[in-house]
Amino acid sequence: MQFDSLDDIRAFCRDLPRGDVRAAEAATVRQKTLTKPPGSLGRLEELAIWLACWQGRETPRLGRVTIAVFAGNHGIAARGVSAYPPAVTEQMVANFAAGGAAINQIAKLAGADLQVVPIELARPTRDFTVAPAMEVEEFLDAVDIGYRTVPPDSDLVAVGEMGIANTTTAATLCAALLGGGGERWAGRGTGVDDAGLARKRAAIDAALDFHRIISGDPLSVAAALGGRELAAMAGAVLAARRHHIPVLLDGFVATAAIVPLARLEPGILDHCRAGHVSAESGHRALLGELGLDPLLDLDMRLGEASGAGVAILLLRASLVCHTGMATFSEAGVSGAGT
Amino acid sequence: MQFDSLDDIRAFCRDLPRGDVRAAEAATVRQKTLTKPPGSLGRLEELAIWLACWQGRETPRLGRVTIAVFAGNHGIAARGVSAYPPAVTEQMVANFAAGGAAINQIAKLAGADLQVVPIELARPTRDFTVAPAMEVEEFLDAVDIGYRTVPPDSDLVAVGEMGIANTTTAATLCAALLGGGGERWAGRGTGVDDAGLARKRAAIDAALDFHRIISGDPLSVAAALGGRELAAMAGAVLAARRHHIPVLLDGFVATAAIVPLARLEPGILDHCRAGHVSAESGHRALLGELGLDPLLDLDMRLGEASGAGVAILLLRASLVCHTGMATFSEAGVSGAGT
Repeated sequence: MQFDSLDDIRAFCRDLPRGDVRAAEAATVRQKTLTKPPGSLGRLEELAIWLACWQGRETPRLGRVTIAVFAGNHGIAARGVSAYPPAVTEQMVANFAAGGAAINQIAKLAGADLQVVPIELARPTRDFTVAPAMEVEEFLDAVDIGYRTVPPDSDLVAVGEMGIANTTTAATLCAALLGGGGERWAGRGTGVDDAGLARKRAAIDAALDFHRIISGDPLSVAAALGGRELAAMAGAVLAARRHHIPVLLDGFVATAAIVPLARLEPGILDHCRAGHVSAESGHRALLGELGLDPLLDLDMRLGEASGAGVAILLLRASLVCHTGMATFSEAGVSGAGT
Repeated sequence: MQFDSLDDIRAFCRDLPRGDVRAAEAATVRQKTLTKPPGSLGRLEELAIWLACWQGRETPRLGRVTIAVFAGNHGIAARGVSAYPPAVTEQMVANFAAGGAAINQIAKLAGADLQVVPIELARPTRDFTVAPAMEVEEFLDAVDIGYRTVPPDSDLVAVGEMGIANTTTAATLCAALLGGGGERWAGRGTGVDDAGLARKRAAIDAALDFHRIISGDPLSVAAALGGRELAAMAGAVLAARRHHIPVLLDGFVATAAIVPLARLEPGILDHCRAGHVSAESGHRALLGELGLDPLLDLDMRLGEASGAGVAILLLRASLVCHTGMATFSEAGVSGAGT
């Protein structure tokens, strides 16, 4: 599938593929027969039912798990909004390739295939305080890259990113689409100091001012104030929906990347779960705005799909209980009140 | 080691084995060299340092992980405080042996050895609204069973329990040692209805009234108002401390089991982490009283070490990052502000 225009994305979102209610119901029934008080595995039960719903199987599987990490560079970095120089984006992509990053270790532990997709690192987006970050064509190209990254036979996709300065991009998107300015959405990202944080807030507010004319249309905002790796994450979420693959979102930037889609059609989030809530200051508020309840809260703020990657382990725990536990009748265990 | 009297336990707690500060410092230094912004792995960093501290190794390991589940029966069950009949304790022990319970699946996923230890199931503790639950000798025997269950070469121990009516026992211990009555500490356990919850609160308040003369001494309270599986969990935590093994506590009952020790010497908690916060209503308040910050919050309330078992997965994520990540210099990645 290719999106040749913003209208193609709008059309997809108007007619979203739906989950399999019968598979979800069958999984719900199975949960009630397992040797535990009803509901006592909490979210592990809910996650098994959610996997069943989106995979269309009473007994879901996690055989092929894909972690997709997209990388991009940002013109806004020139405004001094990050603690690290833009060269680190490419250096970290090399670190991913060499197997030295956190996500490499987590992916291996979680039994997941890691796909790292750098997108035009030598061609940063434009500084969106003075120009659109991307033209619509550039945005669509990045969405397409993300879409094509998802293997259609994946059982689960976790999406994350790497991109120096991209918490500024994410915060600007949130501000433009959800209201509030730099004060509300800017956090310390990789660890910017007070002066850097002030520059970050100022950059966000300057961008809102420059682009206020377009702020009515979510996809135009995603092009003008977004980034290539954010567009690619949106594309990956669309592909997952097309192929009935459940999605784990990573942190603040990954969640912000989906805001334009959620503003078009909130149902786009139904096949997504928030892997964790990041320590990046805007993330908790953003999850609240979207009605997402994170699986983990570990003060992580690394990005590169690390939080979503750890959350894969929770899905595996959910799945082994769903598939491996004995039923009350199999085990000869008495039910409640008997 | 054997505790022949309550005074032996008191003496142990007055002179607790300490963590290895040098190993913790070395692990802290290593964390700062890894290819990520300092602190960006949040609690995964803290957990690696904690493992290093208690194992006494800059590079901790999780080769031999033990999950110890103790089971006991409770005279207080006769007061109608549980949704399930007491026979379920033994039935679930059989289910553990057959591999059909949630903790069997989780232990396998987490790479842990599961040890299930039923303690005198045919001889429930006495109804503590009218008698001491255990004599001191019975209490010490159960502590000893727990102590001997921990393999001294374990790299980690997760402790949990099974015992119909034991959330009533746990709530009564909390009320006696931390203040507040049945209203504060009773929850729905496996899913008791409103009438059962009222009976539970009344049983707790009756027990407090009957035993108010002993409530000054935590270990006497643990004998008079506790249970065998709770005493065994306390014994396992003492053994782990002796052998420098970090501990993951499971839910409300497992945490309540440690309260008598924590009232003697709060430092007993230093080698323990709360694997999760249970949906059982008193657990969050109890963790707050003890200053424990749970690793997971997944609305689980099953017991049988299931929450601690899932938390082992987080320790594994922590460890693979600590040991497997490249350093900034190895990867040629620029540091902050360069």
